[in-house]
Amino acid sequence: MFSRRDFIRDAGLLMGMSATAPAAVRAEAQQSQAGAWTPTPEQSAAWVAQAEALKPTLSGVNEPALRLVRPVADPNVYLRWRMETEAPAEALRARVFNAGESFALDFGGHRAGYLSFLLEGVGHSVDAPARLKLTFGEVPGTVAEMLHPYRGNLSEAWLPEEIITIDFLPQRVRMPRRYAFRYVRVEVIATSPNYAARFSQFTAHGVSSATGRPAALPSTVPENLRRIDAVSLKTLYDCMQTVFEDGVKRDQRLWIGDMRVQALANYATFRNYALARRCLYLLAAYPRQDGMLHANVFEKPAPRASGDVCLDYAALYVAMLADYVRASGDLVTGRELWPVAQRQLELVGRNVNEQGIVVIPEKVWVFIDWQQALEKGASMHGVLLYCYRRGRELAQRLGDARSVAEYGKQIATMTAAAKSTFYDAQRGVFVSGPERQVSWASQAWMVLAGVVAGQEAAMALQRAMRDPSSVPPGTPYLHHTMLEALALCGQRDAARKLMEDYWGAMVNDGADTFWEVFDPKDSRFSPYGDVHINSFCHGWSGTPAYFLRSGVI
Amino acid sequence: MFSRRDFIRDAGLLMGMSATAPAAVRAEAQQSQAGAWTPTPEQSAAWVAQAEALKPTLSGVNEPALRLVRPVADPNVYLRWRMETEAPAEALRARVFNAGESFALDFGGHRAGYLSFLLEGVGHSVDAPARLKLTFGEVPGTVAEMLHPYRGNLSEAWLPEEIITIDFLPQRVRMPRRYAFRYVRVEVIATSPNYAARFSQFTAHGVSSATGRPAALPSTVPENLRRIDAVSLKTLYDCMQTVFEDGVKRDQRLWIGDMRVQALANYATFRNYALARRCLYLLAAYPRQDGMLHANVFEKPAPRASGDVCLDYAALYVAMLADYVRASGDLVTGRELWPVAQRQLELVGRNVNEQGIVVIPEKVWVFIDWQQALEKGASMHGVLLYCYRRGRELAQRLGDARSVAEYGKQIATMTAAAKSTFYDAQRGVFVSGPERQVSWASQAWMVLAGVVAGQEAAMALQRAMRDPSSVPPGTPYLHHTMLEALALCGQRDAARKLMEDYWGAMVNDGADTFWEVFDPKDSRFSPYGDVHINSFCHGWSGTPAYFLRSGVI
Repeated sequence: MFSRRDFIRDAGLLMGMSATAPAAVRAEAQQSQAGAWTPTPEQSAAWVAQAEALKPTLSGVNEPALRLVRPVADPNVYLRWRMETEAPAEALRARVFNAGESFALDFGGHRAGYLSFLLEGVGHSVDAPARLKLTFGEVPGTVAEMLHPYRGNLSEAWLPEEIITIDFLPQRVRMPRRYAFRYVRVEVIATSPNYAARFSQFTAHGVSSATGRPAALPSTVPENLRRIDAVSLKTLYDCMQTVFEDGVKRDQRLWIGDMRVQALANYATFRNYALARRCLYLLAAYPRQDGMLHANVFEKPAPRASGDVCLDYAALYVAMLADYVRASGDLVTGRELWPVAQRQLELVGRNVNEQGIVVIPEKVWVFIDWQQALEKGASMHGVLLYCYRRGRELAQRLGDARSVAEYGKQIATMTAAAKSTFYDAQRGVFVSGPERQVSWASQAWMVLAGVVAGQEAAMALQRAMRDPSSVPPGTPYLHHTMLEALALCGQRDAARKLMEDYWGAMVNDGADTFWEVFDPKDSRFSPYGDVHINSFCHGWSGTPAYFLRSGVI
Repeated sequence: MFSRRDFIRDAGLLMGMSATAPAAVRAEAQQSQAGAWTPTPEQSAAWVAQAEALKPTLSGVNEPALRLVRPVADPNVYLRWRMETEAPAEALRARVFNAGESFALDFGGHRAGYLSFLLEGVGHSVDAPARLKLTFGEVPGTVAEMLHPYRGNLSEAWLPEEIITIDFLPQRVRMPRRYAFRYVRVEVIATSPNYAARFSQFTAHGVSSATGRPAALPSTVPENLRRIDAVSLKTLYDCMQTVFEDGVKRDQRLWIGDMRVQALANYATFRNYALARRCLYLLAAYPRQDGMLHANVFEKPAPRASGDVCLDYAALYVAMLADYVRASGDLVTGRELWPVAQRQLELVGRNVNEQGIVVIPEKVWVFIDWQQALEKGASMHGVLLYCYRRGRELAQRLGDARSVAEYGKQIATMTAAAKSTFYDAQRGVFVSGPERQVSWASQAWMVLAGVVAGQEAAMALQRAMRDPSSVPPGTPYLHHTMLEALALCGQRDAARKLMEDYWGAMVNDGADTFWEVFDPKDSRFSPYGDVHINSFCHGWSGTPAYFLRSGVI
């Protein structure tokens, strides 16, 4: 995920919105609902303190570089580059590098963490600093291609490169920031005419808040799915830092929707309930003035609100809290945060009209997916209805009978309205918008929302998947939703096939961790205008491990 | 100073030497003189330990930036740029900067030290790192001009620029290295589309091992010389770190010849005898195998020998030790290092032929000055003879009668030889080489060596200074020697005029600290091929304070 403002700008360009849209959107985002429930400042402060008390100590793994490699253009792989091994990493120490010379290393897998190495000078006199440029690649293309000129619409500062000057050699250099990388390219910008640079002991210091060993897969799981599972676990592991980060390369931020699916995978694998609890508190502590949660919070240098509000993400906090309580059994936290969840249903529920249909207000952000062609009316209706169902489930668990009853009524109304408004019974699919668009998103969310079930649900999903004119997902995130929907209506084979076709294709194309976006038809696709800014270890993509352990696949 | 190898390369180009010269030179530099006195490993280790025990704690001064400035090309000033004030530095905080925008700050004077500032993000969402480029200028031109493409023959890593990425804002940023600067240019490479950068609290954290307040100048010293004195003191102050550094921008290294003149200024001002003692031990601890001292030592990351040997610098260790003992009265250190000094005279003295004349061996480095046209025979003879005289002085002080006698003989021989070989009695000047070259260097060193004295000495100096065909100095370092010579023969007015003409011109052209090289006829002159690599706060240039306090001017 990234930010609402960029979304709005992109959407504005597509929809011909005026250049003043962002300001209008911000004004809307800041509007207050007088008299509505919001946490008191004391309450927010207590939640932040609670979250900080739960801040995990990261565990580290030090792993040496394995190989000297050379990127080779290869049109047969999705990302267009593969790595050829030149020599074992140990061979590096026998070489020396002068200004303008470079090399690339492969750590054998993705790392989220730090980098250190030993830099020595070899020659008549080590009489000047060394200046180096390092480029960190999650995938071969990042160290193979020129990153400039940069054409993206996210900050260029996310480009994973660094120029450093080392004053005194020999020195054990520890790079100043955390990086996401499997590959590192090192270019010597300058030594001096009197010495060359010698490198050795390249070590990745990976960090994560994931501990313990996930339960083994059932013995019946075949090898191809085991490979998908391993990549999924690594993705989850690397994104579990002091929050569930959306991506470790970028934006390193806690988003509600992204966290929801990461947390599900976490409950089935590393079971770090404290991290989930910390994140639930952090998100709860910084609502908009009216109590609606922001779609994300910033954690560093100190926790604070973001300016982003996103309708589906606000609603999904309810599902996330329900998931947490169900997985952990922690009713205390459930009760404490229950008003927050209820408030989201109340606020998002205000967009339900008299016919029981969600009407997305103008200039309000609904995410669902990065697929720009997507008509989001039906899926947003599905999201909210799903969240009312999850809210009712949680209310039952917490013994809040009044809410059980209230949400029950809303569920009945919205279910009936969905069926009459969005369901094309003749074609057996949900449609959205005046053009009656068929999409994976609409089917998936309507199925999860329980508007149809069993064979009817399965048919809707299958029809969308088979119809070449239906709008497919643009992200692994929506693929996850599709898997959830297929699982819910018992379509285990279809779910497995989807996992094999989609996540399996990434593995076959060399993924060590799952990518933020994967459009099999366009390997250069980026929601941000430049593939070099894409994240290749993205939390919302790492959920196959959840499905493989929850018995649904 | 820089390094011998570069000197040899330059000289080789000039003299048509083959590309193999450096190797041959290195072989020569490493040759051993079996049976000769050298310190034992235990002795060297003890001297290093002694030096480390004397390592000073640096004192710091925190000073805020004063002004926002804009460089303006100005052909009327030597360095071609002047700074115009845009606003007080406090105005900075009211501005915000987007990618591609920049500003420059003036700290009001030269600083050797660190830099910190507060970086904040202003906008809808501070959702990405900031990437900045900082350029540190000792003089306006460094932040006004493009530093690339770089054409120098010293390491490009000395170019005072840094690219940093700040992950989390707001942040108090402390730049990672020590810099030499009066001006800082900050360029925003990237924020994000959602925020702009705001800067404030720019602070220079200057460091020095100079403490105390130098004695006031005599009340008779006029204002123009007081200004020269102030710049001189600042130069000395900034170059006094954990060693006497040649330059704080570059090479940050302890050189014998450079230190000799810095130490003289130190004894007359800050009187940090411990620093001088530390440096004498450091230099003594790492001789060549035969006992000849290297021209410099490296201090960091750990003390070690350099590969540079330079005939005049080796000899000048004797003068430096004599200066130290005379100034400090520390006979204990004098006695301990006396064998080192004697060994230099012995080794450099081996180049004196049967006629009592120094013959510079091929491919052996003699520095004297950066003036490439200089014929160095006479001046090297003068340096060695001067050092025998200083050796005799020290031997007397230490009660080494045998050496007093021995050096006395050598002084008599070399003085007579100098007069008959290098002195053109008819013209009243010293000449050097087959072309009978007249230079400031030859006169200055022959006068300091006592080959002529009184009126005869004054005439030689004056004639060289007035003769347009004589070779002038290329550095403040040789100008210092010239002042010493003028002072020795009582030419106070001439010395004062030289100081006013040379150092005064730098002050008039805006120098806050004195420059490594200053050729009034060529403001772009660099011994290293690119003026941007020149140092503008150079220890060997900061000695007017010595002359103004020693009663000679």
